[in-house]
Amino acid sequence: MKRFVSLSEHSREEIGELLALASHLEKHPDPAALARTLPGKVLGLLFFNPSLRTLSSFQAGMARLGGSCFVISPGQGSWQLETRTGVVMDGAAAEHVREAIPVLAGYAHALGIRSFAGGTDLEADLADATFAAMAATLEASYPVPLINLESAIDHPCQALGDWKTLDDLGVPAAGGKLVLTWARHPKPLPLAVPATVVQMAAARGMEVTVLRPEEYALPEPLMERAQGAAALSGGSVAETADRDAALRGAHVIYAKSWASPKHYGDLSAESDLRARYADWTVNESWFRPAAPGARFLHCLPVRRNVVVADEVLDGPRSAVLPQAHNRMWAQMAVLHRMLAGLKKGAP
Amino acid sequence: MKRFVSLSEHSREEIGELLALASHLEKHPDPAALARTLPGKVLGLLFFNPSLRTLSSFQAGMARLGGSCFVISPGQGSWQLETRTGVVMDGAAAEHVREAIPVLAGYAHALGIRSFAGGTDLEADLADATFAAMAATLEASYPVPLINLESAIDHPCQALGDWKTLDDLGVPAAGGKLVLTWARHPKPLPLAVPATVVQMAAARGMEVTVLRPEEYALPEPLMERAQGAAALSGGSVAETADRDAALRGAHVIYAKSWASPKHYGDLSAESDLRARYADWTVNESWFRPAAPGARFLHCLPVRRNVVVADEVLDGPRSAVLPQAHNRMWAQMAVLHRMLAGLKKGAP
Amino acid sequence: MKRFVSLSEHSREEIGELLALASHLEKHPDPAALARTLPGKVLGLLFFNPSLRTLSSFQAGMARLGGSCFVISPGQGSWQLETRTGVVMDGAAAEHVREAIPVLAGYAHALGIRSFAGGTDLEADLADATFAAMAATLEASYPVPLINLESAIDHPCQALGDWKTLDDLGVPAAGGKLVLTWARHPKPLPLAVPATVVQMAAARGMEVTVLRPEEYALPEPLMERAQGAAALSGGSVAETADRDAALRGAHVIYAKSWASPKHYGDLSAESDLRARYADWTVNESWFRPAAPGARFLHCLPVRRNVVVADEVLDGPRSAVLPQAHNRMWAQMAVLHRMLAGLKKGAP
Repeated sequence: MKRFVSLSEHSREEIGELLALASHLEKHPDPAALARTLPGKVLGLLFFNPSLRTLSSFQAGMARLGGSCFVISPGQGSWQLETRTGVVMDGAAAEHVREAIPVLAGYAHALGIRSFAGGTDLEADLADATFAAMAATLEASYPVPLINLESAIDHPCQALGDWKTLDDLGVPAAGGKLVLTWARHPKPLPLAVPATVVQMAAARGMEVTVLRPEEYALPEPLMERAQGAAALSGGSVAETADRDAALRGAHVIYAKSWASPKHYGDLSAESDLRARYADWTVNESWFRPAAPGARFLHCLPVRRNVVVADEVLDGPRSAVLPQAHNRMWAQMAVLHRMLAGLKKGAP
Repeated sequence: MKRFVSLSEHSREEIGELLALASHLEKHPDPAALARTLPGKVLGLLFFNPSLRTLSSFQAGMARLGGSCFVISPGQGSWQLETRTGVVMDGAAAEHVREAIPVLAGYAHALGIRSFAGGTDLEADLADATFAAMAATLEASYPVPLINLESAIDHPCQALGDWKTLDDLGVPAAGGKLVLTWARHPKPLPLAVPATVVQMAAARGMEVTVLRPEEYALPEPLMERAQGAAALSGGSVAETADRDAALRGAHVIYAKSWASPKHYGDLSAESDLRARYADWTVNESWFRPAAPGARFLHCLPVRRNVVVADEVLDGPRSAVLPQAHNRMWAQMAVLHRMLAGLKKGAP
Repeated sequence: MKRFVSLSEHSREEIGELLALASHLEKHPDPAALARTLPGKVLGLLFFNPSLRTLSSFQAGMARLGGSCFVISPGQGSWQLETRTGVVMDGAAAEHVREAIPVLAGYAHALGIRSFAGGTDLEADLADATFAAMAATLEASYPVPLINLESAIDHPCQALGDWKTLDDLGVPAAGGKLVLTWARHPKPLPLAVPATVVQMAAARGMEVTVLRPEEYALPEPLMERAQGAAALSGGSVAETADRDAALRGAHVIYAKSWASPKHYGDLSAESDLRARYADWTVNESWFRPAAPGARFLHCLPVRRNVVVADEVLDGPRSAVLPQAHNRMWAQMAVLHRMLAGLKKGAP
């Protein structure tokens, strides 16, 4: 596997194999045995944005497989990196990604990059322009395998871990109902997770409903991507602002906040808008119309009593901890596929 | 061993075994042999406060044993974490420790946490409230072994390393006189180290004297904890502001600054107060009443010519370097006990 | 090998052996085999200044050899360190390097230190005073092998990687012409890289020309060091402001900006001065008088369209990527020599 940058690049068969490998690793975690998998292998991690789960689970996962990571965080121990092309670099950035990325690739056996949405230009973010340019630079210069650690519109490691979580919880694929609901939040957040979740659940064959105020309707290209996946899998994707209708019979409520595409980059209009949706905090009452035993998911980090009430997170519905833990097993499966097969003598 | 959060939780026998193992590791440091101890094992390190020795010695110690670490520092590469319960999280913190800690625990085979005293609420700090709440969260969710990397009132890794240092220096246990002296400093510092040092030396059976201006008397619960240890070991614990009396016949002068419990959290009163004790810099003259060959200890970091004069640190009395190095051997013993015995198939 | 702090401390034979080992490692990079080289060995890295290549290539190189690193960055996760002697430490720095360095050395099997020029006192920087004092502290206290990760006037890892790059590119040693050219930049930069490059190329036996505006003439001690190397190798070193004369027949144009020694520490005079040299951006026209197939080198990070035009960096002349990658292989050779030979039982 040369790239893991979007779940949409992988067939259901490939995903199934990764999930099976992830479960196998989870069920056979003998440290000494696992550590013989990737001796001497190095994963470079380039974080343009902060992280907790991704930062720790990739380091832990590589270490469990016997390999190692290095972490570069522009602006923290390393200087700022320029991503625009053709500019006269007399500002804050001391180095361009056109140098930094192939340089790091030359030190590593695989590279992971996190680069969130810019949050001001919706077109550019929907095109995943910054991440795509970095991926192209890597491909053209020193093409080690690439992992997307979250870009403007994709977070495939989250998708794979979430898929495993749904399997582990016994949530049906065909006929399973997943509601992705917008939730309130003090800041306008990127579209990467909602875009990824609908695509993943649609590809899994689920009946997906995006529940959100009208102004938070997901941009058409993201809905179309999910609908394309649903068409192949036999699932479905819909959007609504009708909470009761959406939640009726849901097996899973997956909460996540995101910025209004209507006011993209306009912080003041966003702020006025979200003030009108103060009751979009998921609490126990949201589960009344849902299926019995319906579960709660969130990618984390989550703001307690803003996005979701303590009663839900601390109750038996919440599966956010196994969901987070599955990030590691899913990523270890990806690393295993990418790196364990390298022949002797390969760089 | 499931926890190493306070020396007071361990019997003299257990401590003796850890010290023996630490010395064994120090005397048999063959890298290739040691590296077969913890292959594939991962220690997660969560630092709410800065560090030099703890950060480097745990990473070095795990690496020497063949394992690995990951480091999470809220506010540096990761976002701020909330520690209060029940709050509406619409402020700076993007994630709660009730999620972060079990998430990290799921990636690691053991977790270390550093969380200094808040420095404003003496009651809460004496109860070690923040650390205790995190330990309880871990215990209730994903109970991997826990190491205290310094909390509001405890620093057991320092205690174990210091005990080894006293043994190595040949300082007597029964009958050995240790003076813990307050020293001047530009800032009010936490009580964790003084509380830990008196408890450790008392548990070792020493005659412990806390030398400090009246306003810096250690809070009663901390003195009582040390006196309880002394009662078991045959040692003793006293406090005084009389420098000559305290230092007479001392085998060890251990310097450390701390905040006045009388003005806890009142920076201005603290500042006025400490201006009156400008002569509390340990210099060679302090050793005149001491036993011949008396030694100087400090946990480091130490401010030269504020806490202690260059002449002492650079002279033959100072044992601060082996003291710091013993942190690593002591911690390696703890890690060995916690992690080397895990059965195959354990998480 | 106990020190790798300046190329000038090593004979041509030693350098030849390191280069041969670096090439061998590059050509035989089997991860599992290499990882058996340094099991359980730990390299401590102390960065007083930011880094991208050095930070990642040392971590990657140690990991490929089966060892590990820890990284300490004063001011980021660790407190500020004092480097001056004899001061009363009541300011920002909480710890002195006289403690920090031997403490870290006790945790590691070798130590790397980055400490850039202060940039205000030319005499002190030319004497490499801060780095030399830290090296002396290490030598006097806990003398593990020391690597210079860039000091005020030296960057031996850059030198060794550059030498390998010149060899790999087939640039002649005897008779090979290398032009080190000053280039414009928004900030006055340290002298370490230009000083190192002229010394390295002179020691390799090349005909070295330093091309720069008059006010940027390298300080005499640095030129003398290079001329001393040239005298031994049969090379030569010259300086000029005449661009056409300098570039005529050049096999390599090595670009780098540096501060004017004439206005050292005077930011305003420096700024006025460099405004007069706006045309010192290396572009394709600079190669017209050069030898056919002349190559472009830069140590990176490089500011595009300030130091050098996109057309050069993106064209076939540029060798900056293999140059950066050679840092890792060269450093792995140094680490191999320093650490692979340690006897059993050594600390």
